[in-house]
Formats: sequence, C-alpha cells, structure tokens
Amino acid sequence: MERRRADVGLAERAFGAVGKDVTMSSLRTPDPNPGWLSEFALEETRSRVPILYVEAVPTRVDAAGQIEHVGVLLRGSAATGQITRTLVSGRVFHGESIRDALQRNIEKDLGPAAFPRLPVSPVPFTVAEYFPLPGVTPLHDPRQHAVALVYVVPVTGECNPRQDALELTWLTPKEALEPSLLADLEGGRGQLLKQALAWSGALV
Amino acid sequence: MERRRADVGLAERAFGAVGKDVTMSSLRTPDPNPGWLSEFALEETRSRVPILYVEAVPTRVDAAGQIEHVGVLLRGSAATGQITRTLVSGRVFHGESIRDALQRNIEKDLGPAAFPRLPVSPVPFTVAEYFPLPGVTPLHDPRQHAVALVYVVPVTGECNPRQDALELTWLTPKEALEPSLLADLEGGRGQLLKQALAWSGALV
Amino acid sequence: MERRRADVGLAERAFGAVGKDVTMSSLRTPDPNPGWLSEFALEETRSRVPILYVEAVPTRVDAAGQIEHVGVLLRGSAATGQITRTLVSGRVFHGESIRDALQRNIEKDLGPAAFPRLPVSPVPFTVAEYFPLPGVTPLHDPRQHAVALVYVVPVTGECNPRQDALELTWLTPKEALEPSLLADLEGGRGQLLKQALAWSGALV
Amino acid sequence: MERRRADVGLAERAFGAVGKDVTMSSLRTPDPNPGWLSEFALEETRSRVPILYVEAVPTRVDAAGQIEHVGVLLRGSAATGQITRTLVSGRVFHGESIRDALQRNIEKDLGPAAFPRLPVSPVPFTVAEYFPLPGVTPLHDPRQHAVALVYVVPVTGECNPRQDALELTWLTPKEALEPSLLADLEGGRGQLLKQALAWSGALV
Repeated sequence: MERRRADVGLAERAFGAVGKDVTMSSLRTPDPNPGWLSEFALEETRSRVPILYVEAVPTRVDAAGQIEHVGVLLRGSAATGQITRTLVSGRVFHGESIRDALQRNIEKDLGPAAFPRLPVSPVPFTVAEYFPLPGVTPLHDPRQHAVALVYVVPVTGECNPRQDALELTWLTPKEALEPSLLADLEGGRGQLLKQALAWSGALV
Repeated sequence: MERRRADVGLAERAFGAVGKDVTMSSLRTPDPNPGWLSEFALEETRSRVPILYVEAVPTRVDAAGQIEHVGVLLRGSAATGQITRTLVSGRVFHGESIRDALQRNIEKDLGPAAFPRLPVSPVPFTVAEYFPLPGVTPLHDPRQHAVALVYVVPVTGECNPRQDALELTWLTPKEALEPSLLADLEGGRGQLLKQALAWSGALV
Repeated sequence: MERRRADVGLAERAFGAVGKDVTMSSLRTPDPNPGWLSEFALEETRSRVPILYVEAVPTRVDAAGQIEHVGVLLRGSAATGQITRTLVSGRVFHGESIRDALQRNIEKDLGPAAFPRLPVSPVPFTVAEYFPLPGVTPLHDPRQHAVALVYVVPVTGECNPRQDALELTWLTPKEALEPSLLADLEGGRGQLLKQALAWSGALV
Repeated sequence: MERRRADVGLAERAFGAVGKDVTMSSLRTPDPNPGWLSEFALEETRSRVPILYVEAVPTRVDAAGQIEHVGVLLRGSAATGQITRTLVSGRVFHGESIRDALQRNIEKDLGPAAFPRLPVSPVPFTVAEYFPLPGVTPLHDPRQHAVALVYVVPVTGECNPRQDALELTWLTPKEALEPSLLADLEGGRGQLLKQALAWSGALV
C-alpha cells in the first residue's frame, strides 16, 4: 500500500496525466489513496495554500558521523524542461506522517536498495520557502508556494535512482560548494546544500 | 493591508461565514487576499493536503534570556464548543512567509500592543503533526491534517487577547508543567508546552 | 570508579595499562597522551575551569528513525557509593575532537560490539551544566563544574557494558519517563532523558 | 561583583600580567574570583583540558526577526600582534553559567549600553573546535585547544566596543560573505559567520 502510493505519486509527477479511475477514487470514503490528487485538484490546491514538502540531502558519512560525500540528483525538470541538478524532494500527502513522507520520497528518488538513516528528531536543519515569483527569496518554484522541511540523511546501501532521475552523483563537500555546481541546482537549492554543509560542520 | 488580512483571517475562523465580495476576490489576478479562503474552499483543501500552521509559545524572559513565564490562552474552541486552553496558532496563507504568518498570528492572538521577538532562525523547536483521528499521535485536530512549525517567542509590551481569546494567563514553568494544566490544552498541545520547556532548559 | 576511568581512559584504550611512565609523560613535548591527567592534575584543573564532557542517550530506532527504546546504564556511583542509573558520559580530552570523544566514550560504556550512528551535526540537543553545589540547577556533580554536550545516538549491534557498568537496560519512552526511574538517574540526568525524548518527538 | 569579574577577566586577557594579591586569592575559600586564573595557572590548564568558550555573532534584526546586519569586531590580536577581525568571544569561568558568560562577554566587547537579546535555548547554532595546530580543522587557536558554543545574538542599544576592540562594523549579510572579509576573521571564524548566516536563513 505504501509502495503503491509511492508509485502513484511518482506517476503523477512524471507524466502529469491522470486516469479516470483514479480521479473517481476521491469520491469514495475513506479515500484509499489519500495523498494522491488529480492534476486539476492539485493545481487548484496550489493556488489556495502553501504546499508542504520534505526534502533530503543524501550523504555518505564516516564512522564518526562526518560527511564524506553528498548526493546530488541530475534530472529533467518538469518546470523548465531542462536537465538540472536537484535534491530528494516530494510532497507530504494528506494523512501521511513526515517520517513516512521522507522515507517514501527517498525511496522514490534513490531506489529500494538505498537504506536511509532517518533522523531521530523531526526538527529539520532548515525550512525552505519557495515562492512562485523569482527573486522574492533565493528559492523559487514556478508551480506553487511550497514550504519544505529539509533534512540531512545518511544513506547506506546502493542508490539507483529510478526512471525520472537520470543520475546520482556523490560529491565531496568541497566539490559540492563549487559556485558553478551550486548554481546548477534547481530552484535555488544550492542555498540548501550550503546550509546542510554549514549545519553539519563541513562548510569550507 | 497586513492588518486587514489578519482581521479577515480572524473572521473566517471565528464566524465561519463569508461575504460574496470576498469570494469573488479569488477571480481577480493577482488576488488581493491571497491567503483568504471561502469556507467551502478551505474544507475542500483540508481534505486534500496537510495544512501548514505556525504556533507560538509566548514567553516572558529575564535579562539572561531564561524563561520566567509562559503564556497560555483560554478560549472557546471552534472544534468542540468547550472552553479550553491553547497556544498562539494559525494558518500560513498562500504567498505569506513563515515570519509574516508568525507575526500576524501573534498579533491576532495577543493584540497590537504585544511586541514579539521573532526568532532569528526559521528552524522551529519542534514540528507538530495533527491528524484528524484521535490516538494516532498525542496531537489531534478533528478538522484536518495539520502540520505546525512551533516557536518559543519572547514577548514584551502588553498582551491583550482579542475578542475570541478570553484570557491570557502567564504561568511559571513549574505551574505550566502541572499535569492537570497540560491535559487542558486543546488537541494535545500540553506536549508542545513540555517540548518548549525542555528545549529552553526549563523543564523540571 | 568513574574517577579511575576518566583518568586512565585514553591510556587504557591505547595501551591497556597505566604505569608511572604515563604520568611522567606530561613532562614530554608533545605529550603522547594529551588527554590523560594525573589524579592531582585533574583535581587542580577541576578547581580552575569548567570541564567539558560529552554525554549520549543510546537509542534503538525503527526504520523511520523513531525511538523504540532508550538505554540506561546501571552502575556504582563514585560520587555517592550507591548503585545508580546514568547515561553514557565522559570527558573530552585535550586535543581530542568532540566526535572522537563521543565515539570513545560510547565504546567505553557500551563495548566494542555496539555500533553507534554518530550525529551528522556537532550541535547537541541540549547543553547540560553541572555545578558542584546541589540546587543551583536540576543537574549537579559534587566533583566539579562540568558542561556536557548531550546527543541522542542510535546504536545497532550488541551492547555489552564493560566491567564497571553493571547493566544496560533498554526502556520504552513510556517506561523511561516514569518519575521513579527519572529520579534514579545520577546527578539529575532524568532531566536530560526527558529533554532527549522531547526533542525526538517521543515525549508522552 | 559580576562587573568586577568582567573587568579582571578583561585585564587578564589584554595585558597578560597578574598582580600578586590576585594570585593569592586562590588560597581563600570560597574563592571570590572563581573564574579568574593567574597567567601561569591558565597556561598550565590550557595544556591539560580543552577550554570552554562562548562566542556570539551580534546582529541587528528587523521586526520580523530577520538579520539586517551582523557586527564584526576589528582588533589587535593577542595571538599574532596583527590587527584582525573577530567575533565576541570569551572563556566560561569556573562556576559561571553559560548564560552569564555570554552576557559578560558581550558586555565586555560591546559595552554596557548594548542590550543583547540572549537566546531562550542554551543550544548553540554551532560548536566550534579550535586546535593549536593549524590545518586540523578550519578553526585554530595557537594558544590552546578551545571548544566554543556559538550563538547569534540580536543586539539593540548602542555598541561601544571597549579599549581593546578598536572598532565594531555592521555589515549586511552580503557584505559579511565577501571572501576577503571572511578570510580576515581571526582563527578561521569566517566559517562561523557563514554558519550563522546559513542557520538564520540569510546565506546567499
């Protein structure tokens, strides 16, 4: 069930199309796919309230917990059509806990053989605010006003990004802080990468 | 403008009624009251996504920053009709920053003569998850799935709760941690009060 | 007992024996055992400056990162001669990083088959201040003024407390918050346990 | 008394000389200047244990709590003899609480007409580790192994740095992040400034 939700969520984002049977599901009570929304309902909702996201900076850490590498995704942006770099990111569904949303979105972006060490505390290292208009803050998302709780998540196991994420690159903190790389991150997320490395003591 | 938004927000929550002209405003672009939603639109939205809130534990602090008193509101609950205790709490509107939402909701609940010292960092001391079904977590909200970013906010000046908040009580940390008082807090917010005092080092 | 461990900690780990030559080593430059102090030097130092400690609340977490159990040590207190409960705790040595101190003290108290997931960020969930006089704060240490950086540390593997720690007990958050158990924790550390559970969202 | 301690502490740091009567005071019980150490005792202690510091990034914030300016001190470095930039910084004395140490050191560096808003929580935004050898970490202090708890502290009122701090400069976050300015900060503290701005959401 959890897996099915994840798959549907992925389909929704990747294809931007909705089958009729899924739309109908919102008529049933209780809704078997509570987090899932039709394209129309999602657009409408995006015009009404800030949409809650979770985001994660995947990391490889040494035995002492220090970051050795951070993972950056390379993928096609639904927003711009360009190939851009990004972080693990996804909506919190209706009825879903933040921990479950984090786990689901990490699995969605890094694959089922990645073993994330989810944080003990639900307190994020930063709260990212994306506005539809560029320039209001360093972060922006043309689709919506979004608020993301952002976490650093050490990951073991193998990371095999799924279909829509073309590549996962592991970078040293020094490489990750290269201005040209930071500038490549979608929606201003270079800022989040800098904040993640500052918080973990790896900012150089 | 900011004040107007606050007033409208209050009306919405307190009376659950919406004038036609306000509903119409959603047809204009850009929307002059972006955060404001009709009762129907809000209900519908609540069934689709988690709703983002900010909450604040108002405090009086000494010169060294240590909490001397925490403020607890006594008011009629829209949810239950009963008189209950609660914290400063309110929605983040579409297009509104977290800082602005915090400021607006503090002014709404504590009045215009209260001077909050808003936090320097947008990182909350805890993230509160309210589910519509009781028992899932210690926190619950029968109206919706809500996620609140919760802050401790030192306040100077005079606090005069507005119409719908009947009373503001200042309690010492010791008084605030009385089990009977904690149990009185609406939706399980006694948990948040304990977390606030733990984070500030005042938990005894 | 505690005293002896603190004094011989580094030497013990490195060489497994403490002889007169180690004491003499403080005459050499650079000191090959920088963290190690003679009983006299430690007493003198304790009268001069606050002593820096790291402390850890060991935890067992589920796949979503949520605390299932917290580990509490049962051992003989050097301070009172009584059998008391305590947390993982130890000095940061001269020249030693906080991460290394945390790792060393966890291994000292939980054994070499325990695999701690050390925190990614060096920011503790709380800073504990122990004063020699009881009553100044909820925390006290008759030996010294100590300041501890306190972390929640998920642990996998087997925990076999070494000789001087008689027993490690895994408690559910609910069991850990029993007032009688909290009161048993040495030096007022029941406060730290409550803070750890509040920070991780497990305070009930 | 608090003031007198602050003055003596300042003298100790600024002039490196100790009067005989002060040395004698360590023979009395209880010590009327518990935090104060003779130059000899301080040197000896520095070779034995990490020395605990508090540091502060002074800020001017707007009504919403957002940083408008950060304060950087320009002063003669006791370590190098050069004029360098630095942050508010000072030892935690024996018997002194972290809050008191923070308050005392801010007053020492910014003068008695500066009104700091000390943090509600004792949890620092970062923990800075200074080692005597350069290159081990980005931070270093040739005098000692020091561990500093670092806070962002909004300040109102007038800041008039005392004798040994020649100048206080208020910089916008953008100005503060200029690589040339960051490089000027003593002991690698440019790192701390970046971390402070990252934590407060002002890193650009």
